[in-house]
Amino acid sequence: MIRVTVYNENVHEKLDPAVSAVYPEGIHGAIRSFLEADGDFSVRTVTLDDVESLTKEVLAETDVLLWWGHIAHHKVPDEVARRVQEAVLEGMGFIALHSGHHSKPFRALMGTSCNLSWREDGDMERVWVVKPGHPIAQGLGRYFELPHDETYAEPFDIPEPQALVFATWYEGGELFRSGCCYTRGAGKIFYFQPGHETFPIYYDANVQTVLKNAVRWAAPTARVPLDCPNIRKIGTE
Amino acid sequence: MIRVTVYNENVHEKLDPAVSAVYPEGIHGAIRSFLEADGDFSVRTVTLDDVESLTKEVLAETDVLLWWGHIAHHKVPDEVARRVQEAVLEGMGFIALHSGHHSKPFRALMGTSCNLSWREDGDMERVWVVKPGHPIAQGLGRYFELPHDETYAEPFDIPEPQALVFATWYEGGELFRSGCCYTRGAGKIFYFQPGHETFPIYYDANVQTVLKNAVRWAAPTARVPLDCPNIRKIGTE
Amino acid sequence: MIRVTVYNENVHEKLDPAVSAVYPEGIHGAIRSFLEADGDFSVRTVTLDDVESLTKEVLAETDVLLWWGHIAHHKVPDEVARRVQEAVLEGMGFIALHSGHHSKPFRALMGTSCNLSWREDGDMERVWVVKPGHPIAQGLGRYFELPHDETYAEPFDIPEPQALVFATWYEGGELFRSGCCYTRGAGKIFYFQPGHETFPIYYDANVQTVLKNAVRWAAPTARVPLDCPNIRKIGTE
Amino acid sequence: MIRVTVYNENVHEKLDPAVSAVYPEGIHGAIRSFLEADGDFSVRTVTLDDVESLTKEVLAETDVLLWWGHIAHHKVPDEVARRVQEAVLEGMGFIALHSGHHSKPFRALMGTSCNLSWREDGDMERVWVVKPGHPIAQGLGRYFELPHDETYAEPFDIPEPQALVFATWYEGGELFRSGCCYTRGAGKIFYFQPGHETFPIYYDANVQTVLKNAVRWAAPTARVPLDCPNIRKIGTE
Repeated sequence: MIRVTVYNENVHEKLDPAVSAVYPEGIHGAIRSFLEADGDFSVRTVTLDDVESLTKEVLAETDVLLWWGHIAHHKVPDEVARRVQEAVLEGMGFIALHSGHHSKPFRALMGTSCNLSWREDGDMERVWVVKPGHPIAQGLGRYFELPHDETYAEPFDIPEPQALVFATWYEGGELFRSGCCYTRGAGKIFYFQPGHETFPIYYDANVQTVLKNAVRWAAPTARVPLDCPNIRKIGTE
Repeated sequence: MIRVTVYNENVHEKLDPAVSAVYPEGIHGAIRSFLEADGDFSVRTVTLDDVESLTKEVLAETDVLLWWGHIAHHKVPDEVARRVQEAVLEGMGFIALHSGHHSKPFRALMGTSCNLSWREDGDMERVWVVKPGHPIAQGLGRYFELPHDETYAEPFDIPEPQALVFATWYEGGELFRSGCCYTRGAGKIFYFQPGHETFPIYYDANVQTVLKNAVRWAAPTARVPLDCPNIRKIGTE
Repeated sequence: MIRVTVYNENVHEKLDPAVSAVYPEGIHGAIRSFLEADGDFSVRTVTLDDVESLTKEVLAETDVLLWWGHIAHHKVPDEVARRVQEAVLEGMGFIALHSGHHSKPFRALMGTSCNLSWREDGDMERVWVVKPGHPIAQGLGRYFELPHDETYAEPFDIPEPQALVFATWYEGGELFRSGCCYTRGAGKIFYFQPGHETFPIYYDANVQTVLKNAVRWAAPTARVPLDCPNIRKIGTE
Repeated sequence: MIRVTVYNENVHEKLDPAVSAVYPEGIHGAIRSFLEADGDFSVRTVTLDDVESLTKEVLAETDVLLWWGHIAHHKVPDEVARRVQEAVLEGMGFIALHSGHHSKPFRALMGTSCNLSWREDGDMERVWVVKPGHPIAQGLGRYFELPHDETYAEPFDIPEPQALVFATWYEGGELFRSGCCYTRGAGKIFYFQPGHETFPIYYDANVQTVLKNAVRWAAPTARVPLDCPNIRKIGTE
């Protein structure tokens, strides 16, 4: 069993009936649901209300952390973001979802602004598979479509992805690097663009395939504690 | 003065009046023309008929080589392709244009098939600037459009670009990594997708800006001869 | 079972009693031996005498191909090298060993000269783990030592590794990027420097750990046939 | 003229006579001195005492910022580190020196711990040129030696360098990736390991060549303001 923790700030769901209509159990509930149905994953969920529960211990027992946040990034304590960053460097997988591009842990791991251009016109998006041999792209066709999503457009201020698995074409004329892989320290990181809160993106079968693949890909081989040792000369240890 | 050599196979121009109508001086003539007009470049042109003139000496005196080929890739002798590859590794800049993705030197330098998907419906293409701070993207807006071009679509089988400067959106629904930078050995390489022979792409002001920027970017700092020396132990040389 | 093919040119072993004394079953025999002892691998061996047996079919049934060659690189037919390169791009793992840096398939996949500096003084080499969280580095300490090996020194003309897992310190004063990972197409590639034919490198427990890890890492997720399709406009397929 | 700002915390120089004996004008003074002697650079220096002078305006007028810090990293206000990070993403060059691997701006830009192993035995270090064609390596031989420096050893927890220009061999048996290039946003970043405060490293001619090359390499092509715009649909702007 891969041990997954899903963080969702769960704020839109409380404030906006249009969002809770789409996600009555919250975005975290929808993600938990399809992951649990798979059978390979044990899933814990965390929301902003209990974000402090992302302790060093919980993170040490998490193989892969998924992160959805949007209007409450600033309410995540710096110390929690720092713990997440350190856990990733020690080997925990991390998957940033949609507006999680601006979350504290993702920005800290990237080292860049993670800015992008955006508009909310509910465009159709067509997600192209750029790397058909990549583990995260298995079980998909050449592309898949989502009838409505927020448009995210280039330039996207991220380090050059180590593998660009997906790129998205929007009917309104923009494009975006929508599936980006990184390794930082001992940890693997995946950013996946689809997932605006007002559209039923996380119920889409292709999106679920991507995220299940991504969790398997990001699960750690090893945990390597952070350390900056004062070593002894070889032969004198 | 940056010393530029433009290779164009110049075969479509002889066979197809629709092409020679667009490029009466050949594609190489059109490229030579806007480069010379700039004032910073001295330009030599080479076509398939005199491809053997790409000698070791000529390549040594070339700062940047641009390469347009399509239906006659196989007529370029392996030995010429090998000389070009070696010149790049020693520091010469190399810019592969459009269907030059399948040219012998570009494939040799990439190490991959450089395959892609394609269709010829004359779609509008919108070239997005992915890296606005990159030298090759200077002097452009957020994007520029070309009213008609051949469509090249992902997956494009190339090593992950070291800098992805441009990506293209096609009106028919595809996208493509259309401006890709690499360093190999001491040389810099740029691939640029626009440039189908039946459309006046190389007369477009934005395309000309890109190619002039790219030549400046690819011009070598140093030429480093290829060598695999049997060294002596330090202190015994 | 991971299906492994070990290619060794097996020429030194026939010409030089000092080599056959170290490797009475050939270098391929030694590698086969420790891989089979593991239990996870089924192993086929091929030598220069039957290099043509590396057919498209055999490569399609090979998950990971290891390649040792030195004085007979030029005797490997271009067509065989091309088949190997294509199989890698389609997903087969490839591990180049020691002087395999100059083999036809490795050079074709890298696109560079793969030149390096070298001397044969039997220096001690200390192989440092640069990426302790990488799957290929599991089961090792901070470093391991080999009492004698050929010295390979920088500059090593390769594309920047996507992951540098090992780097080697030589007692005579040089260093070398000795464990380098790449992805090309759907395939994974690993270069590992230790392995001069006159020293019992492939009997070393740490070297065996590295190679078993590398085979597991390089085993394919998927095979993706090479293709450059003329597609139809979306909606008209 | 390239406009250079040299930050040095200048704390060791006040506390330790052994340091002020080597650097009577401070490390920043020594660096300023050889840069000004070159004639291509206008140099401003900043120390911890006036670190707040690194305002948005000063950074906007700085082409390249060099950063030396060690025991007072934590005294640099987070807000100053954030300003430096943003200036780099907008295009300012940044060169982290020696123990600057743990400085706030460098860690923020890398996204990793930047941990390493270290010992202070005054080993000789031999700095190898790994990329002889790189602009930062021009004017050097195959390697250069520094008779005494602090030893920094792998693993060094950084993102894979986009170009590894130098790697260091230590007489005591370690090695280290000592010259690492990155692009982040519109800015270029170089890390260079030599430079322990008790040794006259910055008076070494080769080190000075490296740093002058690095400043020229890191000088910006363009400044691109950070922005995350809510765009309008194309055609409705």
